[in-house]
Amino acid sequence: MNQSFNFPTANDILAAAERIKPYAHRTPVLTCRSIDERVGARLYFKCENFQKVGAFKFRGACNAVMLLSEAEARRGAATHSSGNHAQALALAAQIRGVPAYIVMPENSPRVKIAAVEGYGAQIRFCKPTLTARETTLQEVVQETGATFIHPYNDLRVIAGQATAAKELLEEVESPDTLIVPVGGGGLLSGTALSCRYFSPGATVLAGEPAGADDAFRSLQAGRIIPSENPRTIADGLLTSLGENTFAIIREHVREILTVSEDSIIAAMRLIWERMKIVVEPSAAVPLGALLERPDQFRNQTIGMILSGGNVDLERLPW
Amino acid sequence: MNQSFNFPTANDILAAAERIKPYAHRTPVLTCRSIDERVGARLYFKCENFQKVGAFKFRGACNAVMLLSEAEARRGAATHSSGNHAQALALAAQIRGVPAYIVMPENSPRVKIAAVEGYGAQIRFCKPTLTARETTLQEVVQETGATFIHPYNDLRVIAGQATAAKELLEEVESPDTLIVPVGGGGLLSGTALSCRYFSPGATVLAGEPAGADDAFRSLQAGRIIPSENPRTIADGLLTSLGENTFAIIREHVREILTVSEDSIIAAMRLIWERMKIVVEPSAAVPLGALLERPDQFRNQTIGMILSGGNVDLERLPW
Repeated sequence: MNQSFNFPTANDILAAAERIKPYAHRTPVLTCRSIDERVGARLYFKCENFQKVGAFKFRGACNAVMLLSEAEARRGAATHSSGNHAQALALAAQIRGVPAYIVMPENSPRVKIAAVEGYGAQIRFCKPTLTARETTLQEVVQETGATFIHPYNDLRVIAGQATAAKELLEEVESPDTLIVPVGGGGLLSGTALSCRYFSPGATVLAGEPAGADDAFRSLQAGRIIPSENPRTIADGLLTSLGENTFAIIREHVREILTVSEDSIIAAMRLIWERMKIVVEPSAAVPLGALLERPDQFRNQTIGMILSGGNVDLERLPW
Repeated sequence: MNQSFNFPTANDILAAAERIKPYAHRTPVLTCRSIDERVGARLYFKCENFQKVGAFKFRGACNAVMLLSEAEARRGAATHSSGNHAQALALAAQIRGVPAYIVMPENSPRVKIAAVEGYGAQIRFCKPTLTARETTLQEVVQETGATFIHPYNDLRVIAGQATAAKELLEEVESPDTLIVPVGGGGLLSGTALSCRYFSPGATVLAGEPAGADDAFRSLQAGRIIPSENPRTIADGLLTSLGENTFAIIREHVREILTVSEDSIIAAMRLIWERMKIVVEPSAAVPLGALLERPDQFRNQTIGMILSGGNVDLERLPW
């Protein structure tokens, strides 16, 4: 009954790391004394806001695109996304020199459309519903023969996202805890696998907005509970878990910590002011979780992944 | 007639680097492909926004405080400043365990007062005029016997600021140009000296807001022209040159490039959006100068110092 034999192995993750190495940044791990003092712990921030396209998503998309066979690659890669995965897939396809087809809701922000176009992808617009997205994607795949690369439930994507935690664990010896944000669960499941393989003594946690707490409820219920009318500033974390990410998370993640909007904003601001780096709200959710639970992490060594830095500078939450 | 025998030597700068090494960050040098493409040059950004207190100013203040004799140190260090030098001197004195006396205008922003107090300095408020600042500082020095450490005209401070360019030149081989912002000229004169000693083939330039172009006019006139009613968003660059900084700049700086407010803001935003780092307006002035002169720097290798990252997140210029 244990499905984990399907999941990325340590060798899959090591191979993904080698595969994406020529294209992805090895992002720095930063520390910040004043935030450490505030939280009462030693925090190590893996800065995926500095990754290509401004988010960890490039790791998974790049691994998946590079794993396509020559015949598959010629027909291209396709996905539906209005967010960082769309840009990530577009850039990975551009690097490999193959087509990318991105299905985006017709109400997507201009700046996101321009970014995807800037990487040379072909955009197909659809109505802003999940059904329309999936139908349109199916049409694109049937027309073009492109390979669908799911934003998070794809095992190649999960292995790619796992490389961020692998790198973090190379720089932080024996952390007590790793904590990352959870939306669809690609980063969280990849982090959980890397932690299991490369630092099995560490506990893996996730931070999730209280206003989009489907992963928290799914873990409690023992089955996937879809996200319904999620409301949070952390716009990268609106999606529901997939079958693969849920199975890995259920097995390897200790707990999902919900976080209020106020704490997400306070954490985001703390990172901007003290670390002088730009992170998107989703990236601040794990620190928000720590701010809300000052006693739970006292004196721990904690690794955290700052998932991205794509934020609208015209609409900051303070 | 050549006064430069007084100025920091290569050995002074090397000694300053060793002296501050235990306390200051060796800040990273970042690159950004999309900004390179925009400018048509290879840019290396020395990130002093990640320095202690969020600005290069810590280097000079730290060097000066650590150079005080035991007897001097016991009586403390004093300065007048409402900006980054105040925090820098307060932290350096706190590290050495000696008193710091900071004269600040009574209308200084609460957040800056709190920061200086947070480092344990004693604040003396004065009317917001240059005369009041100087008179109050004299009183403090007479009362306490503290040593006045000028924000930029002090040779120990200049030697400290020079260590930023020294580090940059260790990571960028044979740049064509170094460009930094100029206000009072501490960073610029230190950069010019380091460049002369450690990379004599490079040209040193400065960026200066067109609305506060006293250094530009001083260099043209061959004498210090004080800043009068400067108007710029780059609030770190409002001060006039000092005798020492002017003498060094006149000898070793090729040209001062004035920059419009629009270009400063565009450059600042480009750095935030593309590099995902927080810089203050003053730090963006050199990039603004390049944006205004796309042909002048084509295909060059350019080192740039991002001078600081202390910005009011409530009042961004876009």
